[in-house]
Amino acid sequence: MKTVGYAAHSAQDDLAPFHFERRDLRDNDVAIEILYTGICHSDLHQLHNDWGMSQYPMVPGHEIVGKVIDVGKDVKNYKVGDNVAVGCMVDSCQQCDQCEHGDEQFCREGMTQTYNSPDRINGNITYGGYSKHIVVREEFVLSVSDKLDMKRAAPILCAGITTFAPLRDFEVEEGTRVGVIGLGGLGHMAVKLAKAMGAEVTVLTHSKGKIDAANKLGADKVLLSTDEEQMEDAANSLDLIINTVPVKHDLNPYMPLLDIGGNLVIVGQVGPVNELNTMPMVFGNRGVSGSLIGGIPRTQEVLDFCAEHDIHPECEMIRMDQINDALKRLEKGEVAHRIVIDMATLEAA
Amino acid sequence: MKTVGYAAHSAQDDLAPFHFERRDLRDNDVAIEILYTGICHSDLHQLHNDWGMSQYPMVPGHEIVGKVIDVGKDVKNYKVGDNVAVGCMVDSCQQCDQCEHGDEQFCREGMTQTYNSPDRINGNITYGGYSKHIVVREEFVLSVSDKLDMKRAAPILCAGITTFAPLRDFEVEEGTRVGVIGLGGLGHMAVKLAKAMGAEVTVLTHSKGKIDAANKLGADKVLLSTDEEQMEDAANSLDLIINTVPVKHDLNPYMPLLDIGGNLVIVGQVGPVNELNTMPMVFGNRGVSGSLIGGIPRTQEVLDFCAEHDIHPECEMIRMDQINDALKRLEKGEVAHRIVIDMATLEAA
Repeated sequence: MKTVGYAAHSAQDDLAPFHFERRDLRDNDVAIEILYTGICHSDLHQLHNDWGMSQYPMVPGHEIVGKVIDVGKDVKNYKVGDNVAVGCMVDSCQQCDQCEHGDEQFCREGMTQTYNSPDRINGNITYGGYSKHIVVREEFVLSVSDKLDMKRAAPILCAGITTFAPLRDFEVEEGTRVGVIGLGGLGHMAVKLAKAMGAEVTVLTHSKGKIDAANKLGADKVLLSTDEEQMEDAANSLDLIINTVPVKHDLNPYMPLLDIGGNLVIVGQVGPVNELNTMPMVFGNRGVSGSLIGGIPRTQEVLDFCAEHDIHPECEMIRMDQINDALKRLEKGEVAHRIVIDMATLEAA
Repeated sequence: MKTVGYAAHSAQDDLAPFHFERRDLRDNDVAIEILYTGICHSDLHQLHNDWGMSQYPMVPGHEIVGKVIDVGKDVKNYKVGDNVAVGCMVDSCQQCDQCEHGDEQFCREGMTQTYNSPDRINGNITYGGYSKHIVVREEFVLSVSDKLDMKRAAPILCAGITTFAPLRDFEVEEGTRVGVIGLGGLGHMAVKLAKAMGAEVTVLTHSKGKIDAANKLGADKVLLSTDEEQMEDAANSLDLIINTVPVKHDLNPYMPLLDIGGNLVIVGQVGPVNELNTMPMVFGNRGVSGSLIGGIPRTQEVLDFCAEHDIHPECEMIRMDQINDALKRLEKGEVAHRIVIDMATLEAA
């Protein structure tokens, strides 16, 4: 299938229109017309080859919602016209222990990422959601409830699942005291999801300018991390902290906020953090963990959870031809929560 | 009760004989003649005031076994002649959530440590196990089974519980792959305890000289952490690592040894560790936690577990008057596993 997207041809390039072929449908494939795609901070890292694994041309995008336009002959769960979604992965071995228990992101053979990954069958590098169409095997297609507004659902596929997974892993429930560091794409979803689980949510920010935004999102408390007295008063007051800060930083001011046995989960920074002082960890059985997106069953779960609880990411809609400006704003931290591309604008580009 | 111990009178002093009074028995107190006391690495830190909380004169020692010689009128569970033990704590509020569920080490009012802590009732600073007698409220006295050799049981009270607690918290069982970093007092107990739980135990050491000792203790494998090839081959091979290293060090070489979702537990170093790279944490949901000794019910559990499985720490016995030499050897890392003081030698001192 001929299609069109936006691609970068090197780490220095802006994105530009790119005409390419999507593969002919395999028997278990679903062809999707993409309606909306979210812009994730990791798209920037990939475009700039910050992780040294980028291949060009690159069509980014792994927060995808759209409509089924065709299905392979063995597809069981989807039919033409269905509202569907695709997240960060499009394939995995489907046989290892991790795939068996629904953690395909940790597939022993390596997951196939939605873009910048070799296809398991033909070896072609995958192209993502900054495009008009995508073809994905059925097992990696998610169903989108009618209760979700398609225009505002795309960021659930990465920002949503990335924060939902640790909230579930650490068994957040009614009354759990959850802290959220950062209010960007991930952070604002963490607040909404934790609130819907019944948690008491504290937003941690170093900027007074974020206090209003935190309150609007439903936070019960806002802690200014630059205010030492506030931070001291909040010692032992949290069971779990979701840390969405995407750069090198210091975890030490946050650890004493955790109660005995509490955990801080890193979902933002991939790389170094400052020297860690183990004192509050040992003297309180506190822990620091990382968490990577979530498997397919859990991604379906977060979509359904959002539908049930009327949770939508805060989205700013752009036209496809505004993408380069949008990426520059994201890089400068000038995006409130999440930007979503309206793919209906792509043909006009 | 008049008694005698060894005390330091400042951070610079050697220990010397010290005559002092143990309190008159309260109704819920047990008076114990101490038979053996283990020397813990933390005794060194306390003696040297490394944590800035030391008070002098200081009588260290929190790995204590002995015999009951008297009981208060309300004591229910102990009688004269019983073999008993005292660990790192001698009191707590007994009412907070942490005390309620048997984690007295995290008492909201602060536990009373066996030495260098103010008594909750009279405010006197507690004196520890480098002494002939000790008086402890019943709730903090442990029972020692006849199956345990009293001569070799003392280190269970700190080295044992400190490693047993995370093995239990992280649900080690038949087939769990446990790594142990370091083979000192804590490390060698971690190996023995994990083996008795049915774990497959890998000892991690940077010294070829420790390979024999690891094998003798029952390790299934020994990994030389200085051998990059061995370390690479061992990627994803462990579910849990018990890290007993008591100084600042680099956790990064160890994290990739953990399988998906695995945890490294710090029971040694209290203070900074080198800059942590979150990459293996995020890309594998791996975690780093601290763990502090264990509560009274669990301390009784580890004593009973050791009795049941015939587990004894490797002890080198010294006379009380050899204590200063012993501490110097411990400081230089010249102690194989654990030194125990034979308190029968104290009167002669």
